[in-house]
Amino acid sequence: MDNRQIVLVRRPVGQVDSSTTSLVSSPRPVCGEGEALIKVAMLSIDPTIRTWMDDAPGYLPPIGLGDVVRGSGTGVVVESRSERYHVGEVVFGMTDWQEWVLATDDRRFSVVPQGLGLDLATVMNVLGVTGITAFFGLTDVGQMKEGDVVVVSGAAGATGSVVGQIAKARGAAKVVGIAGGPEKCAEVVEKYGFDECLDYRQGGLRQQLTESCPQGVDLYFDNVGGEILDVVLTNVAMHARVVLCGAISQYNATGARRGIENTSMLIVRRGRMEGFIVSDYANRFVEAQTVLAAMVLAGQLRHQEHVVHGLEKAPEALNLLFSGGNHGKTLVEVDESVRLG
Amino acid sequence: MDNRQIVLVRRPVGQVDSSTTSLVSSPRPVCGEGEALIKVAMLSIDPTIRTWMDDAPGYLPPIGLGDVVRGSGTGVVVESRSERYHVGEVVFGMTDWQEWVLATDDRRFSVVPQGLGLDLATVMNVLGVTGITAFFGLTDVGQMKEGDVVVVSGAAGATGSVVGQIAKARGAAKVVGIAGGPEKCAEVVEKYGFDECLDYRQGGLRQQLTESCPQGVDLYFDNVGGEILDVVLTNVAMHARVVLCGAISQYNATGARRGIENTSMLIVRRGRMEGFIVSDYANRFVEAQTVLAAMVLAGQLRHQEHVVHGLEKAPEALNLLFSGGNHGKTLVEVDESVRLG
Repeated sequence: MDNRQIVLVRRPVGQVDSSTTSLVSSPRPVCGEGEALIKVAMLSIDPTIRTWMDDAPGYLPPIGLGDVVRGSGTGVVVESRSERYHVGEVVFGMTDWQEWVLATDDRRFSVVPQGLGLDLATVMNVLGVTGITAFFGLTDVGQMKEGDVVVVSGAAGATGSVVGQIAKARGAAKVVGIAGGPEKCAEVVEKYGFDECLDYRQGGLRQQLTESCPQGVDLYFDNVGGEILDVVLTNVAMHARVVLCGAISQYNATGARRGIENTSMLIVRRGRMEGFIVSDYANRFVEAQTVLAAMVLAGQLRHQEHVVHGLEKAPEALNLLFSGGNHGKTLVEVDESVRLG
Repeated sequence: MDNRQIVLVRRPVGQVDSSTTSLVSSPRPVCGEGEALIKVAMLSIDPTIRTWMDDAPGYLPPIGLGDVVRGSGTGVVVESRSERYHVGEVVFGMTDWQEWVLATDDRRFSVVPQGLGLDLATVMNVLGVTGITAFFGLTDVGQMKEGDVVVVSGAAGATGSVVGQIAKARGAAKVVGIAGGPEKCAEVVEKYGFDECLDYRQGGLRQQLTESCPQGVDLYFDNVGGEILDVVLTNVAMHARVVLCGAISQYNATGARRGIENTSMLIVRRGRMEGFIVSDYANRFVEAQTVLAAMVLAGQLRHQEHVVHGLEKAPEALNLLFSGGNHGKTLVEVDESVRLG
């Protein structure tokens, strides 16, 4: 009874390649007292996983060499020796990149919402960490107010596309996306309903932004860091809020990180720049999930999932996040038999 | 009846030199209905004045070429055709760099606190914008709490030295200054009572800071920007607050501004970086002034003023802020006859 796993064997320089990870086979874990055995169904592929592969300070320790790659996902409880879990339940937590995982006191799982008529990929996207990140980043860290001019980078991405739609639904004066290439920009406007989308690959982003937001940006939701963050800082409005959610432009960087030159604009415009991690909101997840579920069921929240099939494809799926080759939330299906009620 | 004035004639590249300003003589202004004529006593020399000389976006428009250099100061009311001002009062406001100025509806002055037994220079320092900036930056923007590890750059400077003393008085676990050279560092510890002072000129600041604050920095009050800001960001504690008060290291910079590479630490540690301008607190100045006055009178607030004599010396006095040649708050005495009661 094997447990196929993807382990980190070499720290990547730049993007992950075939020498970074290795597919190994271990014995399936045995369920001890107070534990539950979970068969992994689907992995959530998130940019932050790439940061855990570096030997650098982060909000979690680096993944050790020889360890299974860390990551969240869903699965189904197949055996339980804990009152907390029941056989047949679909649960969410840190599955890591493998076929089987134990729920323990140190590794807890939460029940995935069912009965909404939504498939597992959709729930993992909009009701999972992606949607929840978008919700709290915008409303709590960013303190979004009606009438705000909101700019979102990575606007065609899983988090960014949800941020813009929540902002529209909550009365933003204008929602402007930033994305790479005409195809993604068209998707941001036509599918996700942003008012405009600026194509950073076209060049002249500073000029594009000034024309798009002549009164300045009240709230900037940053998924990318680097040069785009620096450009938006030049055009912040008074009392602007800059929400630092991620810095995907820097995660694969091999040289020095790109320095941000315009932090002084936070003095000039009395702005605030603040970072967060969604897990800080763990005891408030249900607050976001209920709002997001209502929006999805009302047809107010468009979403897209990019499902890659097979555990062994997880490293390639991670690279899609950086190449822009994905469309929407990237997931890896490990076991196609799991269905939500 | 002349009014000697210092006007901006050329935008400086790097530091101010003899070609930047010119001393001119204009007719003394005539006091109209609703106005008051003020004889300027003392100018406050602040780093921000240098930023107004550049043709760049700021919280106030650039000083126009041919215009009197902008700046705050004190003076005495010598004629009044306004109910707001009374002859003989000592007042504070935007005097600009000249001997005479009119108080008008657009240019209002406030009364300088008297009766405390303090001289004008002291009042302009600790009860003026310098002390008020320190107070609100630390307590309001920085939300300082008892037990915080507080780091202050420009610690021997007018603002920094006050910040550290307020932090000590309010129960900081540790107050660490950053200053340039052994003499200033000794002053920060021995005179202003900081627990430690790190000498950035000595090199290895990152290592010095890690050793000084092994649990990380809860609150960083930044007066300098640039490389020192970047180093402190590498060592912020969870939920750290970075108060951006000024970026004096960048104001005379002639090349590209130095980029900040470690903004991602605000995500990792869920930190907040926020800028402010003291004038935002105009309607709360008295709140700071009463606390600061009590501290001075109780001997809890050490302070030092560096008074330069003569209006014509104002440009040189401004350069002292950047060369480190000043000790304490830099002021230019324009009329030595003005005394507080």
